[in-house]
Amino acid sequence: MADSAAAAKPTPLLKDELDIVIPTIRNLDFLEMWRPFFEPYHLIIVQDGDPSKTIKVPDGFDYELYNRNDINKILGPKASCISFKDSACRCFGYMVSKKKYIYTIDDDCFVAKDPSGKMINALQQHIKNLLCPSTPFFFNTLYDPYTEGADFVRGYPFSLREGVPTAVSHGLWLNIPDYDAPTQLVKPLERNQRYVDAVLTIPKGTLFPMCGMNLAFDRELIGPAMYFGLMGDGQPIGRYDDMWAGWCVKVICDHLGLGVKTGLPYIWHSKASNPFVNLRKEYKGIFWQEEIIPFFQAATLPKDCTTVQKCYIELSKQVKDKLSKVDPYFDKLADAMVTWIEAWDELNPPSGAASKVPNGKAK
Amino acid sequence: MADSAAAAKPTPLLKDELDIVIPTIRNLDFLEMWRPFFEPYHLIIVQDGDPSKTIKVPDGFDYELYNRNDINKILGPKASCISFKDSACRCFGYMVSKKKYIYTIDDDCFVAKDPSGKMINALQQHIKNLLCPSTPFFFNTLYDPYTEGADFVRGYPFSLREGVPTAVSHGLWLNIPDYDAPTQLVKPLERNQRYVDAVLTIPKGTLFPMCGMNLAFDRELIGPAMYFGLMGDGQPIGRYDDMWAGWCVKVICDHLGLGVKTGLPYIWHSKASNPFVNLRKEYKGIFWQEEIIPFFQAATLPKDCTTVQKCYIELSKQVKDKLSKVDPYFDKLADAMVTWIEAWDELNPPSGAASKVPNGKAK
Repeated sequence: MADSAAAAKPTPLLKDELDIVIPTIRNLDFLEMWRPFFEPYHLIIVQDGDPSKTIKVPDGFDYELYNRNDINKILGPKASCISFKDSACRCFGYMVSKKKYIYTIDDDCFVAKDPSGKMINALQQHIKNLLCPSTPFFFNTLYDPYTEGADFVRGYPFSLREGVPTAVSHGLWLNIPDYDAPTQLVKPLERNQRYVDAVLTIPKGTLFPMCGMNLAFDRELIGPAMYFGLMGDGQPIGRYDDMWAGWCVKVICDHLGLGVKTGLPYIWHSKASNPFVNLRKEYKGIFWQEEIIPFFQAATLPKDCTTVQKCYIELSKQVKDKLSKVDPYFDKLADAMVTWIEAWDELNPPSGAASKVPNGKAK
Repeated sequence: MADSAAAAKPTPLLKDELDIVIPTIRNLDFLEMWRPFFEPYHLIIVQDGDPSKTIKVPDGFDYELYNRNDINKILGPKASCISFKDSACRCFGYMVSKKKYIYTIDDDCFVAKDPSGKMINALQQHIKNLLCPSTPFFFNTLYDPYTEGADFVRGYPFSLREGVPTAVSHGLWLNIPDYDAPTQLVKPLERNQRYVDAVLTIPKGTLFPMCGMNLAFDRELIGPAMYFGLMGDGQPIGRYDDMWAGWCVKVICDHLGLGVKTGLPYIWHSKASNPFVNLRKEYKGIFWQEEIIPFFQAATLPKDCTTVQKCYIELSKQVKDKLSKVDPYFDKLADAMVTWIEAWDELNPPSGAASKVPNGKAK
C-alpha cells in the first residue's frame, strides 16, 4: 500500500470516538446479528414513528433512544427541521452525538459474507476508509492506493499522493440493490450478487447518489452538512433524504478539499421496500432531480466559506434562489437548512467550552 | 442490466471490424498463449527495433508487419512523428488500420484467470465495454449499470440513463502492476492479486493514467487522438507515450461527449521491466507531469472543435503555447502532433471515396 501512517497500522476500534445511529429498530434479530461488531459501541436510536410505542433493545447494548417527544423537548421550535414518521429523522442522532465518527445503518441490513464465506465486519472497513486519505484530484486505476497490495500507478502525479482527509465512507449492499421504484417494479427479482473488492474516491466535481443504508462519516469534518432534509409526514416527497444530503455533502467536500469514498464494505440488504409505496414517495423527486442535479453540478461556493456551516448556509441561499421556482417545497427546505445549522450549533457550540472538551468524552 | 440493445445480445466477435496492434513480439509463447482468442483477428505488428531482424509469427495467424523502413516508405518525411526504438511506435498501427476497433497489447502480457480459474478472454470483455454506453456525467455506485445483474441505483437521473458512446476501454493487470520506477524500486516484490470484478466510467472532468498494455478503443470515434508521442531514440523521455495519449484522449472525449471505461478485463503481466532503465526514461516525466497534468486539467476546447482532428490540432497549439516553457521538447512534440494528424488524414481520407467503403472492408 502507499505510505500512509493510518493504513500501516491495524484498524483501530475507535470505541470512544464512534456512535452508531439507527433510525428505529423494528426487529430484534437486527441487533442480535450485529452484536459481535456493534456491542463495543454506543448506539443512538432515533424512533421515527409513534412515541408511545416502546423499542426493545436487547441486553448488553449501550444506547440512548430518542422519540419525537424528546426531539421536540430538546430542539423546541427548531424541531421543525427534523422529519417526522420518516427515517430521515436519523440526522437528529448526528446532531446529538458528540463523537468524531458516525456510522448509520438501516434495520433491514444484516451482516454480509465475503466470497470466502467470512462474515464482513462492515464497521471495521468503514473505519479503515475514513482513516485513509482520499484521492479526488486524479483517478487511480488500481482503485484505493492505500489498500494493502495496491499503490499509485505509473503516471500518478507525486504531488497528489499524500491525498486529502476522507470525510465520507459510502458502503454498498448485497442481495437487494438500492433501486428506485420504477426499477424495482420492472426488475422485481434482481439481486446484487457481485462482490466488487474495491474502495474508490469519487472524483472532485462528480456527484453520486449517496445511500443512507450503510454510511459512515467524520462528524468533525462534515457533520453539519449531513442533513437529511424534510421527508415523510406533511412533506411532498420521501426517499430523497440521503440523496439530498449526498448532493450537499459532495459539493461542500469538493469545496473544502475533503474526500468521499465508495465501495466496500457490503452489508446484506434483506428485504425490498414496497415499490408501490416507494413510487408514491418518489415520484415528485423523479421529476425534480432532473433540475436539482444540474443545480448542484453548477453550484460553486465563495472562498470565504471556510467552514461546513458557512458552506451550508450559502447553499441554502442558492437553493432558495434557484430551486424555489421548481416547487415551493424548496423554499421551505432552504429555511429548514438554516434551522438545522442553528440547532446544530446550539447543541455543538463551535468554540469556547466545547472545543476544550476532547471529542467523545463530552457525554 | 439497464436496457441497452448492445448489452442484451451475446458479445459479437467483430472479426472484420477489429485489428490487434502489437509493438514487436519478442517471444513466441505470447502468440501461442493467445491463439484461441486472437486467431480470428487480423494482427498489425509494428517492430520497434532493428529492421534487419525478422520477427517470426507462428502459422495460422493473419498479420501484417511493419518495420522502420516500411514506416519511412509509407509516411515519407512525416515518419518523423513516429517514435523509433520505442514501443510508442505502435500508434503507426492505429493509423494504417482501416477497422473500426483497435485492441493493443504488450508481448509480456499473458492470459489471466478469473477467481474461478477460468481463462479470461480479454478481447471479449473489451468488445463488451466498447459496445455498451458510458456514464460520465454522474457516478453509479453499483459500477457499470449495463452489466448483467446491475442497473442504475436510486437517485440516478433518468435523463442520463441512455449514456454516451464509449470510445475507450482501459483494461488492468494481474501479477506485475503498472508502477513507475520509484515505486518499482521501493516495492520490488509487490504483485497485484486483487481481482476487482467491475467496469466503470471515468467521470467527465477527471483525468487518469492510461496504460497502453491492455487497451481497446473505437478508432472511428477517437483514433486520431491516440497518438503515442515522441519517445525513445533521440528523445528526452520514455514510458510516457500512453500517458500522453491518455491525457489528450480524455480531454477530447470530455469535450465531444464520449466515454472512457476502466476495470475489467485483466491480463497477466508476466514481468517487470528493469526499474533502473525505467528511472532513466521516466525521470524528466516525473517532474514534467506536475505541470502537464494541471495544464490538461485546465484545458478547454472551443465549440467549433467538432471533430477529433480539430480538437487535436487545437490541443497542439495549447501545448506549444503553454508547455514549451517547461522544456523545448514540448515545442517539438506540438509540431509532431500536427504531423501526426496530417499523416492520419493522408492515410484515412476524411471524406469522399474512403467514406463510401464500409469499415473493415477497405483493406
